[in-house]
This record gives sequence, structure tokens and C-alpha cells, in this order.
Amino acid sequence: MAEESPTTPSPAAAPAPVSMDTLVALCKRRGFVFPSSEIYGGLNGFFDYGPLGSELRRNIRNAWWEDMVHRRDDIVGLDCSIISHPKVWEASGHIAGFTDPMVDCKESKQRFRADQLFFAPVVVQPRKIRDTVETTLPSEGESPTLIENKIELIFGPSTVIGYVSALESENTLGELTSKAQELKRKLGVQGEMLNLVMSDFTQVKPEEVEKIPSPATGKPGSLTPPRDFNLMFSTHVGAVRDDSSVAYLRPETAQGMFFNFKNVVDTTRVKLPFGVAQIGRSFRNEITPRNFIFRSREFEQMEMEYFIHPTADWQKEHRDWIEWCKRWLVSIGLPAAQLSEYDHPKEKLAFYSRGTTDIMFNYPFGVQELWGIAARGDYDLQQHVKFSGKTLEYFDESTKQKVVPHVIEPAVGVDRIFLAVLCSAYYEDEVEGEKRVVLRLHPRLAPVKVGVFPLVKNKPELLARAEALYRRLKKRWNVFWDIGGAIGRRYRRMDEIGTPFCVTVDFETIEKDGTVTLRDRDTTKQVRLSEDELVAELARRIDGE
Amino acid sequence: MAEESPTTPSPAAAPAPVSMDTLVALCKRRGFVFPSSEIYGGLNGFFDYGPLGSELRRNIRNAWWEDMVHRRDDIVGLDCSIISHPKVWEASGHIAGFTDPMVDCKESKQRFRADQLFFAPVVVQPRKIRDTVETTLPSEGESPTLIENKIELIFGPSTVIGYVSALESENTLGELTSKAQELKRKLGVQGEMLNLVMSDFTQVKPEEVEKIPSPATGKPGSLTPPRDFNLMFSTHVGAVRDDSSVAYLRPETAQGMFFNFKNVVDTTRVKLPFGVAQIGRSFRNEITPRNFIFRSREFEQMEMEYFIHPTADWQKEHRDWIEWCKRWLVSIGLPAAQLSEYDHPKEKLAFYSRGTTDIMFNYPFGVQELWGIAARGDYDLQQHVKFSGKTLEYFDESTKQKVVPHVIEPAVGVDRIFLAVLCSAYYEDEVEGEKRVVLRLHPRLAPVKVGVFPLVKNKPELLARAEALYRRLKKRWNVFWDIGGAIGRRYRRMDEIGTPFCVTVDFETIEKDGTVTLRDRDTTKQVRLSEDELVAELARRIDGE
Repeated sequence: MAEESPTTPSPAAAPAPVSMDTLVALCKRRGFVFPSSEIYGGLNGFFDYGPLGSELRRNIRNAWWEDMVHRRDDIVGLDCSIISHPKVWEASGHIAGFTDPMVDCKESKQRFRADQLFFAPVVVQPRKIRDTVETTLPSEGESPTLIENKIELIFGPSTVIGYVSALESENTLGELTSKAQELKRKLGVQGEMLNLVMSDFTQVKPEEVEKIPSPATGKPGSLTPPRDFNLMFSTHVGAVRDDSSVAYLRPETAQGMFFNFKNVVDTTRVKLPFGVAQIGRSFRNEITPRNFIFRSREFEQMEMEYFIHPTADWQKEHRDWIEWCKRWLVSIGLPAAQLSEYDHPKEKLAFYSRGTTDIMFNYPFGVQELWGIAARGDYDLQQHVKFSGKTLEYFDESTKQKVVPHVIEPAVGVDRIFLAVLCSAYYEDEVEGEKRVVLRLHPRLAPVKVGVFPLVKNKPELLARAEALYRRLKKRWNVFWDIGGAIGRRYRRMDEIGTPFCVTVDFETIEKDGTVTLRDRDTTKQVRLSEDELVAELARRIDGE
Repeated sequence: MAEESPTTPSPAAAPAPVSMDTLVALCKRRGFVFPSSEIYGGLNGFFDYGPLGSELRRNIRNAWWEDMVHRRDDIVGLDCSIISHPKVWEASGHIAGFTDPMVDCKESKQRFRADQLFFAPVVVQPRKIRDTVETTLPSEGESPTLIENKIELIFGPSTVIGYVSALESENTLGELTSKAQELKRKLGVQGEMLNLVMSDFTQVKPEEVEKIPSPATGKPGSLTPPRDFNLMFSTHVGAVRDDSSVAYLRPETAQGMFFNFKNVVDTTRVKLPFGVAQIGRSFRNEITPRNFIFRSREFEQMEMEYFIHPTADWQKEHRDWIEWCKRWLVSIGLPAAQLSEYDHPKEKLAFYSRGTTDIMFNYPFGVQELWGIAARGDYDLQQHVKFSGKTLEYFDESTKQKVVPHVIEPAVGVDRIFLAVLCSAYYEDEVEGEKRVVLRLHPRLAPVKVGVFPLVKNKPELLARAEALYRRLKKRWNVFWDIGGAIGRRYRRMDEIGTPFCVTVDFETIEKDGTVTLRDRDTTKQVRLSEDELVAELARRIDGE
């Protein structure tokens, strides 16, 4: 067989700058991600993961759980309900403070996040006066103060001719500038427009609100001042629908680790420092969900609370966890070059927070947060002590003292990893003169690990041999059987969904030495192996055995 | 070492009739299951799974997914959002019909499920007259008609002296009878009480409602007639809280497979018959959650929709799936003797349903549903066709016709399996004269697979050897390291959480032949193995390799 000779692929090359459109189309076409309940027109901010997407999501979860919980000595798991006692969210501060500033457009009924809605006054200076300035610029030697005075005098006061607005995008300022030029033209104003100074709507002055056009209608007068909007979804538990029965869908899994702190300490033999990990769905009623699965209303979190002694060196622990998370991301195939760090500025942190560092990923829509690692002191435990009236302490054997531990919290979303993984795995290259799309997924994450193909389908002996091998591999891995079409097309189908290995049973297998070909997705190279060698090689490359 | 000689255990004996109290206490003590947000007093019908419970839950999920999806050729996975377009629940019939009949007690503000609230009229016949009857019983030869007339005449009419009520329990009738006797005594009524005829509150007559005492207060007059209560939790998506923004937390995962039918057919190469499987949280606002995690308000489902050709032999497919599910339950360790089948009576099925069979398990609180296998025809797909206006069809290559498949639906709850597994794994036996609690969990489900112990902790060489072995095993399995206390106590701790294997590194290991002991939880027998033999043996018994 071997219609394909090894080509010269470029696995080390930087990923093609895949656009979100391309990625969303691939996700839909191959069954990774669909809009939720799509036949009803979808629901903004909700997604369904298809046959391949559910496997990829599952593999991400399993890889994290195995590495975070099973392979470490100091971390145990937890799996809490999504709905819990509403006091939890009073204690955590979410009822009072988990809000985004929201702006309504009364005319279009659209809603915007105030911090994503930008505006600028359009300021114009009469051209004639400016011309004068140019001819009377101070000559060398004149004092700066004198120049300023002179300019002011000559220019006269500038005029605000109106406001422009735009939603945050990759080029918000550019958009505002076009709109400002358009406004000036429409009004027939002569003179030079000054550079725009843009602000977001959280900084709006009361007297400006009326003057700023709605991005929905383009006309001023319909926007409201920003107000706080709580992002928690609420519901009622039990048959009474009143204030006493209100409960919330958790906006994060983290609180479960805090309010179960005593349960964990009492039922396990953990010793400080130790962590408690959880994977599960969380819900945030985002005002403007966007960027596909990056900011959705229902998502899956993987959070871990690492409890440390109050006197421990928290900076070191914090740094250690940042490094651990980065190493882990690289271990599942994200290129280190696409990762960066962002330290939240001290002045923007909550009062109890000691520091938060985000591991950022270079998404097609910009560098955005992937994994946040926060040093939160003992704030959360203390809040639950206060609100529940229970003690949440750890008995330190060495000092014989009870302490309330501090915590380092690495929190990441399955779906953000999912998206980062797809973005960095997507390549278009050429194999034998034919363009191919290939997802260079890490074998641990690949939805399908191995494709098994009989070279031809009209040769019963060959077919039986291939099927027996398929059955053998399937006991251990998720394996795909494909007998349809030319072998090259079958490879291409597997390449596009990220299957790292393809095994072909051909005439040599049944007529000669029983060996089969193992094809590598990334290099497209093939080697011949006995079936036992094949199993050992796959175990090594998929499971690291 | 080997302080323990093989004893004579009884792994094949019927399980100790473990009480729910014992089981709930074990779950709390060892970190399997806690009431949700327990430090705030819990929330009725919600639970948090602790370090061991989260592992057991995860192992149940993984075993099901591997066997249902990966090891079969005909089933693919799906992972949908919990919140979807509200039209879904209109189409499925949940908005109109997913209700339980509910009764309010206006005085206590308690709510009851009408079908779990039983009542009976208390009927008394005057004793004196009856005494007369006894002395005037007809002699042999008298005609039956005559006897009846005579009795009626002598007894006179019976009198309803009041009503009694009780909630469904293991002995509802007994409870009602005690209450009836109490009532008769309180009223000072003479005569003989007839046997009670009990009904549930769905059968109550309008004129009876006022007369039946509330189980909460014991006094009549406060119960309302039964009314339908919808079990779906609702919320609002987006910032507007009006009818247009209502959405529901899914009460089942199954609908995801129906409204994504076309997406699955379009993105995979499935051929009829094929299945689509999903694991995920579902929510039902149960009026009376009960029996621990058996009937809770938030639970985890594992559902699969198996699509078959409309002309296929659905009875055979239905039966095949019942058998598959039973085999699977036995494969993960449930005793076949604890399982039974219940066919829903034809007259109680929904009009579209062709048949539903439940696999029942003998729980401590009675024989209850574990896994329902329903033959639902094409009702669900057709409803979504009707409500979405989209076609949901499969193109049958052989007949060149488009068909709407029919479906067989095996639906089971992770938590019900969790509970059944614990109930049937729980044993109390005696080892060397000491009572022990042991969970005979299947190795595939056991939260911890292996305990590794150095015999003593003050011998660095032995400790290092044990730790190296621990590290080696931990790469592959969830392994627990324990150096605390006598070896017997360490075994006991592992027995109680169901760890199937314990490995001890002792003086023979370091001074003689390098072998370690492998102890079997159920037989408590020990064998000596080299480390390589140990790994092979564990792989065989845990992963079936």
C-alpha cells in the first residue's frame, strides 16, 4: 500500500492565524460545538457539545482531574450541587457585589455592558484660526510658556459638536473616529477635528448621558445611566414562589470548597498545605455573551482551593501554582509562546485579595484570560464562619494551634481550554499537493485516538483481520472504524478531527508478515509494526506508558 | 509481618440488611455524601459529594460512558447545556404536563404530594348489636340471603366517626389504624372499628377534603384539594425579567438527543440503528424529596436514545436493552438477586408510549425503580418537528427513503446507582475476632484502588522502597499512602471505604526477595508478589487487562 510517502510537514511552525469564523464552522461541521437547541434558533450564550466535542471536553476534564487530584498526594476532590443554600452567596458577597454595570437602550430594548460601551466627545477647532497659528509658530529660543499662551490665544475655544459611541471591538477607536468624521460631515462643520479621547460608559457624567447616541439606533436620548446588574441566575426551590424560596445557580464552583471545608478536614486525613478540587457547571447571566464559547452563560469550571498555613510564604505558593498551571497547559499541547501573564493591578483588587495573576492566551480575538490564579487570604473561610456561626478551622499538630488557613485559587474554564486547544491545534498544510486541515491535538485530548482501516473492503480475510484489530484496540481506547472511500480520504477525515494515529491493514498484513501500518497525523509518516508492537507504541504515545 | 491469617469470609452471602441510617452515617463519616451547604442547615433535596463520593460518582460515570459509548460501534456522545430554548419544553410536553398533584396545608404551610398522602374514613359499628348477632348466627341449612338480611337488620347502619391521614411510609396502613383507634378512644365511641380502606389524596372526593386532618397538624380543615404543580425549576435569561425571558433547568437530559438529532446525523456517519448518549445534571422541584439521594431535586442522569427504523422489531430492541442494562448492573457488582423487572401497565402509559419496563432494585426502603427502559415510538422527534418547523429525518440508503426513527430509551440516575452500589456493597463481618465494616465495591468503582503501606515508619530504607512503589502505582491509579497506626487498623480503614487491594512493604521486601504482600479486601487473603507481578495483577483485576 503506502500510497503516501512521508512529506515535509511543519509541526513546529506557528499556527495558522485561524479566524473564529473558520473555527466555529469546523466545530459545527464536524460535531464539536453547536448553538444550544439550534432548531429553535439557539439561545444566546448557551452551547451544546456534539459527539466529538463531548469527547474533547471529557478528555480535558479527565486530564485535569488525573493530574490535579490522582497524581498528587495533597489534593482531594469534591462534587457539589449547583443549587445550594442562598446564604452561601450572601457570605461570599455575590448577592451584593457580583454585578456588571449595565446600560439600557430604551428605544431598541437592547442592553449593553457599560464597560464595553465606549463614547467620545467630538471636538472641532475652526481651521482659519489654526492656519494663523501655523504661520506664527514660535521661533527657536522662545519660552514654552509663551508658546502655550500664544496658541491658546490664537486657537480660541474648541467646540464639542456631538458625541459618538461604539461597542468594544478590536478597533473601537477606529470605529469611533469614522463615526466622528461622519458626524462632522453631516453637520457641515468646518475646522479640524481633535484626536478623540474615548471613555467607557462607567465613566460617563450625568449630563453626558442624554447626549450620547445608542450604538443600537445611532441616535442620542435613549440610553440610561449605568446601573448594577446581578449576574446570578435565580430560581425558586419548593412550591412557594416568594423571597423565602429564592435560590441561585452557582456562579462559581469555588464556594463549595469553602463551605465544605470542615467536612473535608473531618473525613479525610489531609495535612496543610492541601487542596480541594472540583469540576462542574457554573452559570452567569452575562449581559453580552460573546466570542463563541469564550464568554457564555453556562460553562464548565475546574477550580481548586489550595489551603496554606496563615504564616506560609503565600507569594511562593502563588508563584508555584502559576508555574504548575502553565506547565500543565503546555503538557496538553498549548504552545508556551501563546501564553503570557497578566498581574491584576493592586488598586483594582478586592480589599482581601493579595494578588491575582492571569495566564493569558492569544485567542484569535485577542489576548484574553485563560486561567486565573488568585491569592485570597482567609477571606472566604472567615465570611462563612461569620454567616454560618460555625468554626472552620484546621488543627495544626506541630504548634497545637487551631488556624484558619489562607488559600491560593487556580480557576479555569473547560470551555476556554477547549477553545485555546482548538485554536492552537488548527493547521492548514499541504500533503502530496493537496490542501488539508489538520487538528494537531495532543493524543491525550484527541476525541478519537486511532482510526482503523482495512485497505480494501472486498477482501473478507483482510476485513476480518482489520476488524479483529479494531476490536482489540477498542477495548482500551476510543477507536474509529472506517471502510469508506480511498485511503487518502480516510486519513484526511481523521486529520480534520485530530485523530493522532491511523492503522491500516493491507495485503502485506495478510499475505506476508502480519504487520500493519501506523500513520502519524502530524508527520504523515508511516511505519510497519506487528500488532503487539502497535499496541505497545500506542500505549506509550497515548497514555505515556 | 502477616499479622493476619486468611479468615473465612463470606463474600457470597446476602448483604447485611443495611439500614438507611447506617448508610447515611457512613456516607457522612467517610466523606461520600453530605447534605448540600450543610453549615447553613442544608437545603432539602440537594447533596454535596465528598472526596470519596466524587470519585465513586466519577467512576460510575466513566464505567457507563466507556461501556455505552466507547466500546460499542453504534453509539456517540453528546453534552448539552442545562438551560436551553424554552420551546424545547413546550414541544416535549413538560410545560403542560410535567406535574405532580400537590396538596397544601394552609395552617402549617407544608406541602404534600397528593399521591403520597393517604387517608381513610373511620367506620364503627355498635358492639352491643354485634354481640346480638354472634348469638343469633344462622344455623346450618339456613339460606345465605336470609343470613345477610338478618345481619343487616341486627347490625344496623355503620357510622363514619371521622377521618385519619398519614404520609406514605413502609407501614402506612398500620399508622392509619393506630390513628383511627386513637380517634375512636378520644371520641369515646363504643363498638367495633371496621378494617380501614385507604386511598391517596388524588382520589379524594370534594366533600371529603374539609374532613380529612392534615398530617402536619392532625386537625381537619386546613388541606386544599390537590392541584397540579410543575416540577421544572424556572429562571430568567438576560436582564429582562418577564415572560419572554423565562427558561427552565432541564428536568431530563433526553431532549438534548432529540433536538440535536439532525446535528448528530449530519456530523457523524451513524447508520440506523444508532444511539446518542449523554451524562449530566437534571433538576426536578420535587414536592417531597426523600430517601437520601434516591429522590433529590438535583441529580445526575445517564440517558441514551437508541434510534431504530420505524419498521424494526421494537419489542426485540426493547428487550435487548433491558438485558443489556441488567448485565451492566451485574458487571459493576450489583447482585442479580436484588434486581427485578416491573412492566408499567398499558393503561398507565402515555398514549405515544409502547411500553416501559423498569429495572427495580431492592433498596432498604423497598423495591424501587433503578433504570427505566422506555419504547417511545417517534413521538419526541415528531413533536420537535412540529414545534421547530424543521425536518428531523434519516435517509435510509437501502430503501432510498427518508424516515423518522423510533426510539428506545434506557434512562438511569448516577445517584440511584451510587445508592444501590453502596447498599449491596455494605457488609459487616468479623476478621480475627474483630468486627469490621467492609464495602465490597467492584474494583472498577472503588474510589481508591490500592492502599500502599510501609510496615513500619522508622526504617528509612523500607519507607523509601514503599514510597517508590506508591509513586509507580499512582501514575496509573488512585492510590492511598498510609503510614499511621498498626497495619490491621490501616487495612480496616481501607476496608470501610471499599479499597479492593492493599500492598504492604515489609522486612522481607528489603531484606530478602523484594516481594511485597497484596491483600484482598474481601477474602483478607495475602499473597507475596514481585513488584512487576503486582502491577500485572492489579491491571488484570482493576482494568480487566
